[in-house]
Amino acid sequence: MIKTTTPSYSITIRMEILNRPGMLAKVVSAIGKTGGNIGSIDISGFRNDCIIREIVASGTDNEMLQRILNAVGEIKGTKVIGVTDRTFMAHLGGKIEIKSKIPLKNKDDLSMAYTPGVARVCTAIHEHPDRAYELTIKKNTIAIVSDGTAVLGLGDIGPRAAMPVMEGKALLFKTFGGVDAFPICLDTKDPEEIIHAVKWISPGFGGINLEDISAPRCFMIERRLKAELDIPVFHDDQHGTAVVILAGLINALKVTHKDIRNVRIVVNGLGAAGIASIKLLMAAGAEQIIGCDRTGTLYSGREENMNPLKEEIAAITNREGIRGNLAKAIKGADIFLGVSQGNVLHARQLKTMAKDPIVFAMANPLPEVMPEEAQRYVRVMATGRSDYHNQINNVLCFPGLFRAVLDCHAHDINEDMLLAAAQAIADSVAPEELMEDYIIPSIFNPEVHKNVTHAVIEAAARTETARMMTGLLTF
Amino acid sequence: MIKTTTPSYSITIRMEILNRPGMLAKVVSAIGKTGGNIGSIDISGFRNDCIIREIVASGTDNEMLQRILNAVGEIKGTKVIGVTDRTFMAHLGGKIEIKSKIPLKNKDDLSMAYTPGVARVCTAIHEHPDRAYELTIKKNTIAIVSDGTAVLGLGDIGPRAAMPVMEGKALLFKTFGGVDAFPICLDTKDPEEIIHAVKWISPGFGGINLEDISAPRCFMIERRLKAELDIPVFHDDQHGTAVVILAGLINALKVTHKDIRNVRIVVNGLGAAGIASIKLLMAAGAEQIIGCDRTGTLYSGREENMNPLKEEIAAITNREGIRGNLAKAIKGADIFLGVSQGNVLHARQLKTMAKDPIVFAMANPLPEVMPEEAQRYVRVMATGRSDYHNQINNVLCFPGLFRAVLDCHAHDINEDMLLAAAQAIADSVAPEELMEDYIIPSIFNPEVHKNVTHAVIEAAARTETARMMTGLLTF
Repeated sequence: MIKTTTPSYSITIRMEILNRPGMLAKVVSAIGKTGGNIGSIDISGFRNDCIIREIVASGTDNEMLQRILNAVGEIKGTKVIGVTDRTFMAHLGGKIEIKSKIPLKNKDDLSMAYTPGVARVCTAIHEHPDRAYELTIKKNTIAIVSDGTAVLGLGDIGPRAAMPVMEGKALLFKTFGGVDAFPICLDTKDPEEIIHAVKWISPGFGGINLEDISAPRCFMIERRLKAELDIPVFHDDQHGTAVVILAGLINALKVTHKDIRNVRIVVNGLGAAGIASIKLLMAAGAEQIIGCDRTGTLYSGREENMNPLKEEIAAITNREGIRGNLAKAIKGADIFLGVSQGNVLHARQLKTMAKDPIVFAMANPLPEVMPEEAQRYVRVMATGRSDYHNQINNVLCFPGLFRAVLDCHAHDINEDMLLAAAQAIADSVAPEELMEDYIIPSIFNPEVHKNVTHAVIEAAARTETARMMTGLLTF
Repeated sequence: MIKTTTPSYSITIRMEILNRPGMLAKVVSAIGKTGGNIGSIDISGFRNDCIIREIVASGTDNEMLQRILNAVGEIKGTKVIGVTDRTFMAHLGGKIEIKSKIPLKNKDDLSMAYTPGVARVCTAIHEHPDRAYELTIKKNTIAIVSDGTAVLGLGDIGPRAAMPVMEGKALLFKTFGGVDAFPICLDTKDPEEIIHAVKWISPGFGGINLEDISAPRCFMIERRLKAELDIPVFHDDQHGTAVVILAGLINALKVTHKDIRNVRIVVNGLGAAGIASIKLLMAAGAEQIIGCDRTGTLYSGREENMNPLKEEIAAITNREGIRGNLAKAIKGADIFLGVSQGNVLHARQLKTMAKDPIVFAMANPLPEVMPEEAQRYVRVMATGRSDYHNQINNVLCFPGLFRAVLDCHAHDINEDMLLAAAQAIADSVAPEELMEDYIIPSIFNPEVHKNVTHAVIEAAARTETARMMTGLLTF
């Protein structure tokens, strides 16, 4: 396993350093010898004969951070006076807060924002329920709902421990889509109870983003909620991932001059992301897909390790009925899509793929095959990580998508809208920029999110999923 | 019924007015003749021979606003070019939003706030669940939960129409207590389902404020949630009201030189506020209380219009067993507390009360007896309205109270804490300020909220309801 230093393991070391030439160099050198990486170095004060500096250092893990501290601690003429973990600091007290949109400075403000004036607004909504979209936060607010059963690569860590991820997601919704998203982590794992909870809390929200709910429960929960609620419901681990995979694939196919209708695609991992990706790829025109999980290839009639969703997929994929393990499945395949777990594929197996292989190894944090090892066998390589090129990142999709459904009051998120989002992401890479190492745009390019929003609104209107709204202010 | 113009019925009229002496006076005069009140008058531009002005006018109701518009529309040399309702404008798009506390400007930010760094924070909470109070919004966030069954004086208007009130409450929590409160309006009225819903959504919250849930359901819901959750649960309509009533009463008794242990108190209305007030007054030392509802006085053995809470109250109040209507109950009483509905008391009935009567007529928007009518019979008068002196306003209690329980990690809100809050509010009126017309401080006095917080933390510590927290940043 190859490890690189990362800001996610970084500390700020506050230390007194004797004010002599060469002292800082000793500190920097000591950190360097541990394998640690130096970030910013600031002067924060002076004391006696010393300079007080704040040095940011990053490592690969907790052990390296400890080695860094030990190393700087041993230098004569220095003294560590404080250490803060930058990641934990970022999360201190939570990452979002509630902001008042109107000031309450006097009784007049209160009598309009609260009693007695608010009664007029309540009455208006009571008489015309759709005015909730005009006069309450429903207009711009969604719930990020999780039961904490499939959080990142950590698995079932429960609702409390899932909160930092959901808050992070709320940050992303606001930063990239202007969407107010509030995290709701549920203290139940029972699908029926989750469905009830979401339905009961739904009146104040304009949409529901399901997150990190384990498969296969997530499929039923999403299907039921989509059918039973009148606001859009979206399971990002399924459809967000599928959209960005398709976006990357559209551009990878351009680079390799292949047609989605003719390529052979192996999808490894039949959880939320795998199942949804297979469906969306087929909706986009893919005809030859072979699903694969730890049991081996998925085929019609397989009996081991099945569920209703896999049955459904088995019936429409792998027409040749190939049976065997992943190694067998990828022989002659044009595309490998990994949404499974780290290190399940040997780089040399990639040699058996068709010409110009496309490999998306998206397991996190460890990909199915490491780019360093795969690089020489593949034409286009993508991962889920930010420290390699071509990061397949859901953030490219969900902020712009929800911006769209809130703006056009869509009552659902349908396949056409997902296809439109994928195409918009792919098209955000200009033809002259497109190359093997750049098939997917950066999430920091604001145009991407706008493009997704425009495309999704257009698709919602075309499929009559957008709703007309009354917008009059009457009294 | 006496009606006064209110900012809650106010409009901004944008109009072209011929630029001639006396024209503005005509407009002002026309509005005045309708009974409307003029607020600010701004110049927003010029066009040809006209000045474009924005005139704020307020009325008593929609009809008066329409009369104002008709009146100004008839003036020669003027033209109304736009009208906005200021109350509806204040609510447009909702009154709160989600604010990111940390910027996401580059991959380093993301890798600390979100993946991969967030996994370290999740793991820390998974291993030490109490760290949720340090590393997530649980530290400062509560849910405002309602089913919309008893909203203001509007009754059962449902969860969607209740949202503007809950959002307003969130504004008050943030503005006066620095508490992040998020509104959750539930699409169920079933007490068991409400209890389930609140328990399931609780992991991300540091407290629950129940709001506008009708009695007697609210009692059982609160009792169960208090017993079954490890975070504080508070039904503001009960206890917030009781605290501020007690605060007002403490000072009213000072003014009238009476002792709470010797006074006779009639509480009219045996819903959420009435029941809770009786209990808190008794905890504060009151011994002679007579409850009253539309059936008449409450006494042990009464059979009509009862519920378990009324049974409980009947057993500990009205020791003389007085039977009859409200008129009979208040004969010789020192204090009348109305938490019922408008106009149930004739001013002349106040003449039968003991010397120096104290009357809190808190029904909203119409008090049990109007202050204009009651004034000559009573010594101290208070209402729930902002347009009379001595407003008994829950906002004096809940922001400072929840600030306290979040700061000291109280697992419950007990009676001692409520009594401490009431005393702190009462004490916020200095002895030299105290008089008949000023028994209760203004909500805009920031000291009140701080005083409540300090007093409640002290009471929580004294009663061992506050919890010690670990606060170390470790990696």
